[in-house]
Amino acid sequence: MNNSLNRYDGLRAFRWENDALELLDQRRLPHTVDWVRCHTAKDVAEAIRDLVVRGAPAIGIAAAYGTVLASRGSHFEDDVLLLRAARPTAVNLMWAMDRMVAVADSGSDRLLVEARTIEQEDLAANQCMSKWGAERLDRGCGVLTHCNTGSLATAGLGTALGVIRYGYAAGKIQRVFAGETRPWLQGARLTAWELSEDGIPVQLIADAAAAHLMHSGQVQWVVVGADRIAANGDVANKIGTYALALAARHHGLRTMVVAASSSIDMRTLDGEAIPIELRDPEELLSFAGQAVAPTGVTAWNPVFDITPAELVDVLVTEKGLVEHPNRARMHDLFGA
Amino acid sequence: MNNSLNRYDGLRAFRWENDALELLDQRRLPHTVDWVRCHTAKDVAEAIRDLVVRGAPAIGIAAAYGTVLASRGSHFEDDVLLLRAARPTAVNLMWAMDRMVAVADSGSDRLLVEARTIEQEDLAANQCMSKWGAERLDRGCGVLTHCNTGSLATAGLGTALGVIRYGYAAGKIQRVFAGETRPWLQGARLTAWELSEDGIPVQLIADAAAAHLMHSGQVQWVVVGADRIAANGDVANKIGTYALALAARHHGLRTMVVAASSSIDMRTLDGEAIPIELRDPEELLSFAGQAVAPTGVTAWNPVFDITPAELVDVLVTEKGLVEHPNRARMHDLFGA
Repeated sequence: MNNSLNRYDGLRAFRWENDALELLDQRRLPHTVDWVRCHTAKDVAEAIRDLVVRGAPAIGIAAAYGTVLASRGSHFEDDVLLLRAARPTAVNLMWAMDRMVAVADSGSDRLLVEARTIEQEDLAANQCMSKWGAERLDRGCGVLTHCNTGSLATAGLGTALGVIRYGYAAGKIQRVFAGETRPWLQGARLTAWELSEDGIPVQLIADAAAAHLMHSGQVQWVVVGADRIAANGDVANKIGTYALALAARHHGLRTMVVAASSSIDMRTLDGEAIPIELRDPEELLSFAGQAVAPTGVTAWNPVFDITPAELVDVLVTEKGLVEHPNRARMHDLFGA
Repeated sequence: MNNSLNRYDGLRAFRWENDALELLDQRRLPHTVDWVRCHTAKDVAEAIRDLVVRGAPAIGIAAAYGTVLASRGSHFEDDVLLLRAARPTAVNLMWAMDRMVAVADSGSDRLLVEARTIEQEDLAANQCMSKWGAERLDRGCGVLTHCNTGSLATAGLGTALGVIRYGYAAGKIQRVFAGETRPWLQGARLTAWELSEDGIPVQLIADAAAAHLMHSGQVQWVVVGADRIAANGDVANKIGTYALALAARHHGLRTMVVAASSSIDMRTLDGEAIPIELRDPEELLSFAGQAVAPTGVTAWNPVFDITPAELVDVLVTEKGLVEHPNRARMHDLFGA
């Protein structure tokens, strides 16, 4: 085991500096490393909406710091609404806002403490999940991941990518494949970058190549994160996760979902009740400012989908593992 | 029914002009319409390899004209080998070369007649398949297609896209979705272009969004082409087709494969025996010359996959339809 994984000192997606929140601009990675400085809650809400920062846990943490900024302005209630509405699917955003609002009466310093606590808890949760998830993998296996679930999406090692980091360091993982993750290419731009920085070999695939990869016998596990998990264990995650879980089940492979309890939403009955964000068709119609499709053509661009609980083999959280999640098992671990 | 569909006078992917083969450069569509003029068989082989022309039937026809050019040079046997080796998966290439070589002793004029015949037969096959395929669709349905199977891939209306053209004109199809088809974006660049030129509304989706689309109830049929169909009915087609057929079956939708008999390869036992082309990782690592992934990262880039026959609900060819293809039913229609 690589000891450096026991204490996280790697890549950061955000930093609180001189009374402002600085966000690593994930739209421009990996070829340009640039920080966006947010002075107001509105700045933070815009940065979340525009994908300067993305990844369910990172969005929650950014919004928490955004609430600190809101408390210094004169439109706290409005700013809170703005932050809550920045993106609809990842429940971490609402979860973090609930925690922040609950202590808002104690003032700005208390809010900063709460934001730091949310960040530290996420970092610690990453450690637990990464270890526990890696323990569940078979020695010598190949894994396929999707989107980015690493340090850029969390406060630490990551969720699914944390498991891959631990599993690789422990010699359990022999091959890592990453779906490029259209339209925003989080796999090609962010996951490939994080893994290559860590010296973990990764092969990118077109998202549509996943079923063929599974058939080829090169992977045994699909390891993904989550943006929201409903009370029955249904998982909202990056568009394409559902197809991966379907194909994995068809090929007798297993699907592991790795998510901090901040992504669990016991108030949402099932996946059908989770709002799925539809983003600008332009994300598919052009690339880096260049038009791809002909003028006048449109696109349907949902950026998340729902993987039904029955396709999940194991859910890894910092509170424990849920094998074959269902309503009863979710209730046992996460309460009402 | 739109009468204009009964006689094809639309878009052409190739033309024989002044003793040379001119190919519409599909790498630059839809924003640049440019023709590449091939004077030698080597020019044609390179154009096929570099995707100036693509689509199984179009590759076969281009290679047939390439053989005419070869017959005018002094390295006929070598040129034939070069053309045969240009791309490995679509059997139309080998099929067309077999036909051309069989008449090669009769001279260059006879070869030109044979190439024109192959082209005319494909055009006629398109008409049959388009009508018969459209007849099988349910009124008011939504269809999802993948890659490009239209006039740019054939000599006429297209295979799957011909069915969609007929089905739309007949008022049977209400919604058309096209997967963008990474890495080469044939869906976004070529299919969207053909459909919008025809005034058929189309919505692009990320390939990874197909399962979510199916779950949403907006499509009832997956309609695709084929690059090679083995004797047991297994279908090699553009990477991602397998995942679409798997997801369609899971959602109770139907999958139609539309392919001229030139794509049927009764000498290949099953899909496992079909060679799957692996292309340059660079197709995934960069976009329009811009690096996407970080330096040093690699990619696994198979550009076709195998859809097992049991996931195909109906195969439409110009020789007839095969419902739920298997070895016996394929043998009944296509012989040994």
